[in-house]
Amino acid sequence: MVQEYPKKIYLNGEILAPEEAKVSVFDRGFLFGDGVYEVMVQINGSFFYRAAHMARLQRSMDAIGIAYRSDDVNEGVEQLLEAAELQEKDCLLYIQVTRGVAPRQHAYPKDVTPTLMMYALPKVLPDVNTVHAHVVTAPDFRWDRCDIKMTSLLGNVMLNEHAMQHHCYETVLVRDGLITEASHCNVFFVKDGVVHTHPANEYILDGITRQVVLELCGELNIEVRQEAVAFSDMNGMDEAFLAGTSTQIAAIRQINGHSYYDREEIGPVTHRLQQAFLQRKRKK
Amino acid sequence: MVQEYPKKIYLNGEILAPEEAKVSVFDRGFLFGDGVYEVMVQINGSFFYRAAHMARLQRSMDAIGIAYRSDDVNEGVEQLLEAAELQEKDCLLYIQVTRGVAPRQHAYPKDVTPTLMMYALPKVLPDVNTVHAHVVTAPDFRWDRCDIKMTSLLGNVMLNEHAMQHHCYETVLVRDGLITEASHCNVFFVKDGVVHTHPANEYILDGITRQVVLELCGELNIEVRQEAVAFSDMNGMDEAFLAGTSTQIAAIRQINGHSYYDREEIGPVTHRLQQAFLQRKRKK
Repeated sequence: MVQEYPKKIYLNGEILAPEEAKVSVFDRGFLFGDGVYEVMVQINGSFFYRAAHMARLQRSMDAIGIAYRSDDVNEGVEQLLEAAELQEKDCLLYIQVTRGVAPRQHAYPKDVTPTLMMYALPKVLPDVNTVHAHVVTAPDFRWDRCDIKMTSLLGNVMLNEHAMQHHCYETVLVRDGLITEASHCNVFFVKDGVVHTHPANEYILDGITRQVVLELCGELNIEVRQEAVAFSDMNGMDEAFLAGTSTQIAAIRQINGHSYYDREEIGPVTHRLQQAFLQRKRKK
Repeated sequence: MVQEYPKKIYLNGEILAPEEAKVSVFDRGFLFGDGVYEVMVQINGSFFYRAAHMARLQRSMDAIGIAYRSDDVNEGVEQLLEAAELQEKDCLLYIQVTRGVAPRQHAYPKDVTPTLMMYALPKVLPDVNTVHAHVVTAPDFRWDRCDIKMTSLLGNVMLNEHAMQHHCYETVLVRDGLITEASHCNVFFVKDGVVHTHPANEYILDGITRQVVLELCGELNIEVRQEAVAFSDMNGMDEAFLAGTSTQIAAIRQINGHSYYDREEIGPVTHRLQQAFLQRKRKK
């Protein structure tokens, strides 16, 4: 997959070409990974679950003491979409807020202005993600505050690279014998018609798509247990799937070589949720 | 303490004023905290334990798959010190290598050129650190690869801020009931003349000053146990101290309000090690 740069970058009130969009080497985002971010998608002219993404951005900033209001992002989003000619168009929006620029010292500097960087990329998500994902597992060696959507992402980067090295779609993470999430998605399992996923505590990021899946389960009368699945029970599950903003809902066909299904015969619960998710996108 | 910017920055072969030193917002150091770093000090015309710092930089890069040789830093160091008029002068050198610039995707991009950023600040370390440190403890919520000196430092940043909020010099970290290290120093305890410190595994950064302390213990016939001290045994220790490149060896007077000594009467082992460290600096 060839990745491309966006045409326009929003940086602290300015619209810039990607080659012009630069931050100080003393930006704490560069020195310390001291920032937070969000990714959301525009579908049919509006951002899918925008309020939920913005509320999470605010929670992330509050958790690490960045004094910024997520509402103050809105004007820049309009400015960016207009400059990028993506108003009303299907696209992916990336938003990053760092603590700002200061001489290097670990503790939070005083009187610093946060850095706001955003870009939008044209992106038309498929109606349904037709991937039949093969995934591998790896020990979840990340920190204990995975609920904060921060840019100190080296752990996630290494774990995602692990998937690529194994020619897999994702790496599913195991902490203390329990499955937490994947390197940049949440993970769900289905057994006897019941959906199992890790509770939204400090060991996972509570994905917006995860929340939508749980809503849809409620509407479809699918029972949910927000309890972690043990690594040792993984192969005994009937179905498994990933959820994320760009991934939407992706069926897991194989995990560590164990197959949940053959060819394209994805499980019935995954299928129902994918269809319900599609309807939700159309309604929003 | 007012922090200042260095006068000159080395960035990918160029010498720049701090306000000119900028990296792309697509530098993975900014997007992902995907980089490593070193800090070393020049004392009496040469960098203290330079080879050890450079070997660790290489290990950090190897651990996260950045294809760069730490030897290739040397020419830039000379260029920087000359531009900053710090050749032969006592100073602190900061070196950061990131994976480079690429469109945002978690996995390692192909054919990317690492970013090298360095700066030097005039810094004359005191002969002996005369601080009588008051420290607090906090749960060590960082990842399980603290042996990699990486720039995804938000955990360390939050833990250092915790010390500042408590008007303390450092935060000492506790994982599973055991003391690991501090937010940017290693920690040592002394009991009945024996020095105790956490073994150099994946839960701590194996500080160069830590290694020097262990060398000095050997030379002074001070017994060392590289075993973690339990949080519950902490107050029963006779002495405690911190070690780090800028901190050197700093006596801990008080931890969570428990005093190891009164006024300036630091323990005998800490004192001997501080004096031996001073001699080592003079010899190098």
